[in-house]
Amino acid sequence: MAGAARGAAAGAPGAAAGPRVARVFAELAAEVPFVAPEVLERAAGAPFRARLGANELARGPSPAALAAMRAACARAGLYGDPSSEALRGELARRLRVPERAVWVGSGIDDLMNQVVRLVVEPGDPVVSSRGGYPTFDFHVRASGGRLVHVPYRPDFVQDLPALGAAAREARAKLVYVSNPDNPMGTWNSGAAIQELLDRHLPGDCMLLLDEAYAEFAPQGAVLPYADPTSDPRLVRLRTFSKAYGLAGSRIGYGVACPEAVVGHIHKFRQHFGVNGVAQAGALASLLDADGRLGEVVADNRRGREQYAALCDRLGLGHLASGANFVAIDLGSEPRASALLEALRTRGVWVRKPGVPPLDRFVRVSVGSEAERQVFEEELPGALEDIAGLA
Amino acid sequence: MAGAARGAAAGAPGAAAGPRVARVFAELAAEVPFVAPEVLERAAGAPFRARLGANELARGPSPAALAAMRAACARAGLYGDPSSEALRGELARRLRVPERAVWVGSGIDDLMNQVVRLVVEPGDPVVSSRGGYPTFDFHVRASGGRLVHVPYRPDFVQDLPALGAAAREARAKLVYVSNPDNPMGTWNSGAAIQELLDRHLPGDCMLLLDEAYAEFAPQGAVLPYADPTSDPRLVRLRTFSKAYGLAGSRIGYGVACPEAVVGHIHKFRQHFGVNGVAQAGALASLLDADGRLGEVVADNRRGREQYAALCDRLGLGHLASGANFVAIDLGSEPRASALLEALRTRGVWVRKPGVPPLDRFVRVSVGSEAERQVFEEELPGALEDIAGLA
Repeated sequence: MAGAARGAAAGAPGAAAGPRVARVFAELAAEVPFVAPEVLERAAGAPFRARLGANELARGPSPAALAAMRAACARAGLYGDPSSEALRGELARRLRVPERAVWVGSGIDDLMNQVVRLVVEPGDPVVSSRGGYPTFDFHVRASGGRLVHVPYRPDFVQDLPALGAAAREARAKLVYVSNPDNPMGTWNSGAAIQELLDRHLPGDCMLLLDEAYAEFAPQGAVLPYADPTSDPRLVRLRTFSKAYGLAGSRIGYGVACPEAVVGHIHKFRQHFGVNGVAQAGALASLLDADGRLGEVVADNRRGREQYAALCDRLGLGHLASGANFVAIDLGSEPRASALLEALRTRGVWVRKPGVPPLDRFVRVSVGSEAERQVFEEELPGALEDIAGLA
Repeated sequence: MAGAARGAAAGAPGAAAGPRVARVFAELAAEVPFVAPEVLERAAGAPFRARLGANELARGPSPAALAAMRAACARAGLYGDPSSEALRGELARRLRVPERAVWVGSGIDDLMNQVVRLVVEPGDPVVSSRGGYPTFDFHVRASGGRLVHVPYRPDFVQDLPALGAAAREARAKLVYVSNPDNPMGTWNSGAAIQELLDRHLPGDCMLLLDEAYAEFAPQGAVLPYADPTSDPRLVRLRTFSKAYGLAGSRIGYGVACPEAVVGHIHKFRQHFGVNGVAQAGALASLLDADGRLGEVVADNRRGREQYAALCDRLGLGHLASGANFVAIDLGSEPRASALLEALRTRGVWVRKPGVPPLDRFVRVSVGSEAERQVFEEELPGALEDIAGLA
């Protein structure tokens, strides 16, 4: 019915032929980027013993952040500061960028949607890696963009020169890179990102650099922050969802050229959209980050090493990870899918990439020590369950 | 720079001519729908004594909601349920509509943006009342829509037959009505809304009915809920920001036809966008609404009566209000603007409509008893301050 009724009768009062939706949505297939763990738990009739599918920080926010959030709940009757002034100020000081170059949104998905909406018009070519973070592609499709997909390198690292070449060939307005990468956990060096900007990316093409996992990345894997006006093509997104344990609070930030990017986003962002409890939690998380973040990162490294040792023991391939999860190679898509199911029946929830050739991997979050223990105990049995598969 | 560089040189690698933003944003003037109270407080160097400008519930969430939110903070490390299943189920039961007809978003501004984005394409005519809720117009402009404004009736009530006539004449895809209305506080009856649908609105035109203040409305002013498939043009939005005291938590809901509207919104909404603390607070608010909501509504009525009596005593005109604020008539825009300033220097923050002929009013939130006391004490002096103005 939607998008169809445009005749004279439809325009008559009270005819109730139904609303006319924009062409892009009328033509778009229904899609949900991720099935919710709550849906799977309801189907299973029990909560998961190990929730290792969403790359969350199992220990949650720091005690100081938790205390700040609980205090902020008392002010929930009042709108949160629409300019997130206190948080933006602290971020700008730490990153040594002007406050005007920083804006705050309800997590990276929100920020990413803003950036896609800012540049992508129906029919515009947009370049991303085939099988990369699905929510980016979801937003591009919703803006009517035409996705140009570039294969990962054979070592499952995003191919930056090839992304740049595809952008030049397609005259793309936007290239997406996640670094470290979700879902593979691999990374490019900061120098390689800079080289993408300097040598490969067209001068009028935006680079959306999704750094959700930057805090977990090895030395040299993160591009240093520079004057955001020096290259107006570069838009960087970070989040409090991962290393700061605030996934459920929905808060993240972007850094970009104030004139070329941030000023435009203020024209259409939800000015009162960032909730006050999250603002309080994020600010407190930053202020006590020095001690806490080191612990979180060290624990995450132990978790990755534990998974690597486990895989080595069981003869499974795995990728070196710069994030808070490890991609484990099952050798084929049917084996990876079957392992997902086998683990789920054992109370372990993980996810996997959906697109070849990445889809032969499963992606396992580091989680808590207890959850890793459950995974370590259940993986051998789950592998036995799928032993017949090629 | 943005939107300009499209030549061959701009496409060369590393030229850094800057990103090309979508035409609608390149051409749109910078705009902020509301100046934040925090910005005004910083300018004043002190917090307001009475925060009566944002129609917030001064007493905040109910004790049960506050307890649920504080408990939920411990789970802030985990993403909130992307389907808001528990909250949607409870809403559907109470409204007697199918669960599939209900969706949850981060407050009415978020929901409104979704609905506007769903239907409005560049150049599309959209009908709203001249001087009505500015955030609706903000979203229409960001979607490239062409606003067709219909004057309020002389009694400052939205003119529903005229809105319908304008929609027919312009072949509009969308008409916006807030009921009760913000910023005037006036309302139409549920029967009048139904008549708009039955007799005036084109059969292929959506009616976006913003009911943010419905809980405060007098008997008969609210359209009863019916089967959402019976009229796919009708989209209703409600919020937990006002009567439930959760403005800072960002949570609200929409009810519409699942096939014609809600299914399309799932194609592009932020699936993980509604924070978990807000979901917990909203559900707890609903579950203890029966007692609490009655108190809130009764206190709000006392506040409106107090303002009406105050205005009568001071010889000021005022509109009957079905919301949690009162529009006070200063007789002219210069007097209304000057009163805003005079009140602000006395520590009282209120807002006013920005567009003639509504702009001769100031809009004062009911607030807390203590805040109303401050307003009552300061208003006579503020009126003396502006006594010379016509």
